[in-house]
Amino acid sequence: MGRALAGALLAAGHDVTVWNRTPGRDGALLAQGARPAESAAEAVATATTTATATAASAASSAAAAGSPLVLLCVRDQSAARAVLDAAGAALRGRTVVNATSITPEDARANAADARARGFRLLEAAILTPTPTIGRPQGTVLLSGDPEAFTAHEPTLRALGTVRHVGTDPGRAAAFDAALLDLFWTTVHGLVHALALARAEGISGTELTPYAQGLPQLLPPLIEDFARRADERRHPGDHSSLASAEAGLSHVAHTARARGLDTTVLDAALAVTRRAVEAGHGSDGVSGLVELFARQATASSTGPATTGPAAAPSNRRRPAGRPR
Amino acid sequence: MGRALAGALLAAGHDVTVWNRTPGRDGALLAQGARPAESAAEAVATATTTATATAASAASSAAAAGSPLVLLCVRDQSAARAVLDAAGAALRGRTVVNATSITPEDARANAADARARGFRLLEAAILTPTPTIGRPQGTVLLSGDPEAFTAHEPTLRALGTVRHVGTDPGRAAAFDAALLDLFWTTVHGLVHALALARAEGISGTELTPYAQGLPQLLPPLIEDFARRADERRHPGDHSSLASAEAGLSHVAHTARARGLDTTVLDAALAVTRRAVEAGHGSDGVSGLVELFARQATASSTGPATTGPAAAPSNRRRPAGRPR
Repeated sequence: MGRALAGALLAAGHDVTVWNRTPGRDGALLAQGARPAESAAEAVATATTTATATAASAASSAAAAGSPLVLLCVRDQSAARAVLDAAGAALRGRTVVNATSITPEDARANAADARARGFRLLEAAILTPTPTIGRPQGTVLLSGDPEAFTAHEPTLRALGTVRHVGTDPGRAAAFDAALLDLFWTTVHGLVHALALARAEGISGTELTPYAQGLPQLLPPLIEDFARRADERRHPGDHSSLASAEAGLSHVAHTARARGLDTTVLDAALAVTRRAVEAGHGSDGVSGLVELFARQATASSTGPATTGPAAAPSNRRRPAGRPR
Repeated sequence: MGRALAGALLAAGHDVTVWNRTPGRDGALLAQGARPAESAAEAVATATTTATATAASAASSAAAAGSPLVLLCVRDQSAARAVLDAAGAALRGRTVVNATSITPEDARANAADARARGFRLLEAAILTPTPTIGRPQGTVLLSGDPEAFTAHEPTLRALGTVRHVGTDPGRAAAFDAALLDLFWTTVHGLVHALALARAEGISGTELTPYAQGLPQLLPPLIEDFARRADERRHPGDHSSLASAEAGLSHVAHTARARGLDTTVLDAALAVTRRAVEAGHGSDGVSGLVELFARQATASSTGPATTGPAAAPSNRRRPAGRPR
């Protein structure tokens, strides 16, 4: 992803200095005109161009060399912090766009650190795959310092469609987390559906035309569920939690009868059944949105939170729905 | 659904006799010209028209009265068996289309019973919601006796797009189960994404334009994963199981930090982590298709199968992939 970001900036005519934690991975970028740097601090400090940036592979970092704009895209939060620490005082007065995939709470911690160290931070979430970067389909959400966004938006547009989604630095990561939640859960449904079909002698090719009904069905469903969530009204007129429980139970039974692992189906069934047992059987399935917060203490079987659950005071968290 | 089926047959000009387990629920159908029957046996036996059918609400039955075609759509397998038993000898020589949502194994058991009792059975799975019935978008899969399908296809076309998907009577139900697996898992991802967004101060309306990226992204993903499943090749070139584990872990952590129930995410993470720990981290995510069958014994935490897991000899179950 780092390489794609740097490549898009180069393609848009910007001067770009690149540094990668693993030396030798930036050959293609150098051939496109990027300048190499020996260290993160050098990448940030030594170049003299104005709208430059560096980038590299997923296990690397990208920084706008000597320019007011530094792009960072590394593996995770600890790698990002290591690079920011190594860049040291060279960052002062510059703007860092951190495109590393991190949690909202880490994004907020990074912003506090940036303020203390005298540089401006925009936290970025890249919603689309590498090949979309530099095209309109490439979608990058940014949150944090609004003046930094305004100042650098013309440069950042080289990456694709860029949107500032809030001054709370964690907001881009929060959008990202919600969308990854939807994506990865759906992917698990898809692979399990293919496994169940195969166990019943149905090939992927045979299932495909019917499975393609889902993407046709989703747009109005997403809109409907989102509106219900915002209005906190979940009538069971189309599909109730009781019918969801019956459907999931039916599918889990069928999969188990074929000897398949049903861990995810059992989890979805357990969540649905708890909602029904709590008296919400005739509510619409979107009503689960109201219940996840309250079910957590009683029933989440996951490991304990490893990070601080407390959020900074600028977060907006709606109160639980009374019902 | 029963009412929709009967209504579509009436609209296509067929004579229809209706019987409902709960008397008085067929008023609208009678106004459209359906004939009432006092019992399932009467509905099946007493009318004299040729291409008739009866239907009623979700907790009811539908039967082609005195005609060679009987439609049955009730709550579940036990209700279906009760109605078929009550209809008794009147079914002999007729064709029953059972549109009740049941498991593949129940469908096979029903077919064996039909053979023993001298009537023909097509098991039907209705893939689309009630309002689509009678329109081209209405999709009904049928499996079982191919001659019965050929004989009644002209009548059944009144219901929408009808497809015969195999002589194995359980095949329509198997397609249905796989598609419900995909659908309900996706719905759980959607409601959880909306809950996570809300906990982070993001409304459903704000999330919607980005969530609508999923249905755009799915068609090629479904095609790709289905082809990989059929070829049993799962290169990790786009997205590996290791990256899926990292993504799910990240999202589950974020949700837990907000106090949300993470049962389904934890389940998806556990399944993915087991695959990584078994040495498949660099495989593509579609590789899970190969692993669900083998993981089941060791790790499924669900309740024991409540029905017989043994399948009749005519099922086709591919052997596990050696690797």
